[in-house]
Amino acid sequence: MNTMINLINNHRSVRHFEDKPLSEEQIQMIVTSAQAASTSSFIQAYSIIGVTDEAKKKKLAELAGNQSFVETCGHFFVFCADLHRHKVVSEMEGINLTESIESTEKFMVGLIDAALAAQNAALSAESMGLGICYVGGIRNNLHGICEVLKTPEHVIPLFGLAVGYPARENEQKPRLPYHHIYHENEYEQSPNQYKVELEEYNKTISAYYHERTSGKRADTWTEQMSHMFEKKKRMYMKDFVQEKGLDRV
Amino acid sequence: MNTMINLINNHRSVRHFEDKPLSEEQIQMIVTSAQAASTSSFIQAYSIIGVTDEAKKKKLAELAGNQSFVETCGHFFVFCADLHRHKVVSEMEGINLTESIESTEKFMVGLIDAALAAQNAALSAESMGLGICYVGGIRNNLHGICEVLKTPEHVIPLFGLAVGYPARENEQKPRLPYHHIYHENEYEQSPNQYKVELEEYNKTISAYYHERTSGKRADTWTEQMSHMFEKKKRMYMKDFVQEKGLDRV
Repeated sequence: MNTMINLINNHRSVRHFEDKPLSEEQIQMIVTSAQAASTSSFIQAYSIIGVTDEAKKKKLAELAGNQSFVETCGHFFVFCADLHRHKVVSEMEGINLTESIESTEKFMVGLIDAALAAQNAALSAESMGLGICYVGGIRNNLHGICEVLKTPEHVIPLFGLAVGYPARENEQKPRLPYHHIYHENEYEQSPNQYKVELEEYNKTISAYYHERTSGKRADTWTEQMSHMFEKKKRMYMKDFVQEKGLDRV
Repeated sequence: MNTMINLINNHRSVRHFEDKPLSEEQIQMIVTSAQAASTSSFIQAYSIIGVTDEAKKKKLAELAGNQSFVETCGHFFVFCADLHRHKVVSEMEGINLTESIESTEKFMVGLIDAALAAQNAALSAESMGLGICYVGGIRNNLHGICEVLKTPEHVIPLFGLAVGYPARENEQKPRLPYHHIYHENEYEQSPNQYKVELEEYNKTISAYYHERTSGKRADTWTEQMSHMFEKKKRMYMKDFVQEKGLDRV
């Protein structure tokens, strides 16, 4: 296993950071790495907003569900799907591109482009000895987030990436079994075998929580997922995305 | 700059491969790296299908717009957003989770999870000296792709990742200016400045094509984008995604 794969496979989230900001050089390195990622048909449908203003960071931490490390990390990046740029292109070229910009296909491109860039950023940071944590919590209240970040129409903040000097690392959570994620030639699973695999995985996850919490918690993966999905989080999203002019047609 | 960042920043797509399949060990390494990526709230809403069957590869190459390297690469992976798994969870736990599964929020989670995993896979492959190319072309005809890969409801193939021994590498295309992608504290751009930056970038891209094609081509980025968006590609996507039971509510 080479050092790169070692770094990739050793990833764990960091939610406790030392009180030390990233240097301008580190930020530039991380953003440049993000930009080196592949982008669908060269569309480059994403933007990154780095938040250093203390009041804004405090507000973002609140909006993301009171996650204090959003405020205390070394640098907080917000990755956005961005088709505003192509609206400007349409003005510059004098051609109406609205239907494409507002299509589900281009919404998907924005999400994929932003996530590919973000994972490059994350690994770039980790290779410098920094810790990272993705913050999907910003999607709890995107109206508020957009207000803080002053994003225009056709831009949707997707997730944060908190980066900084790690004070404490999480443990690695065991992932779904390899053959549950990876199929050969076709998505062929006997429904029974599929459930047997999930039951096996449940045992692994339950044991993981049991050990980590000294017995206080021992829920399985399927329990955790069903409780989470039952709560119907962020059901405003469809309207929100369409209000912003994406995923409409 | 460390070796990891060097590898990230030197990425270029490879569309010409030697006739040599990946080993089982390489495939496992790549998939394991994919699984090490962060996943939103531990949802793990993606699957990977590796295609080795010759007839299937040929069909996928056709469906992706006659991209022959889909057939000739060392291994072809298809990354899918996958909420089928959570439908099975719902059966196992006896709780109706349909509304969450079919929400725009979970559709976004599927896309983001799959893309984060894919970028880990891509870098893992590149660190082994292999070349990669993302293939968004599979979205030209997802009905056909789903038939070949036998994907169930709530699963959407998003893009392919062709991996193999590079026979020829593309050049790196210059990316949008740093400050066009990266904003500080808020998305604040004067519309004029924004256009000036794009005009500057147009010169860079035009010069890039001019040199690369010995003068046969010199289109700018905004021209390229407006022609592409004017064509309204893949406008069936909204209906398709909803037929498959995602992004409905």
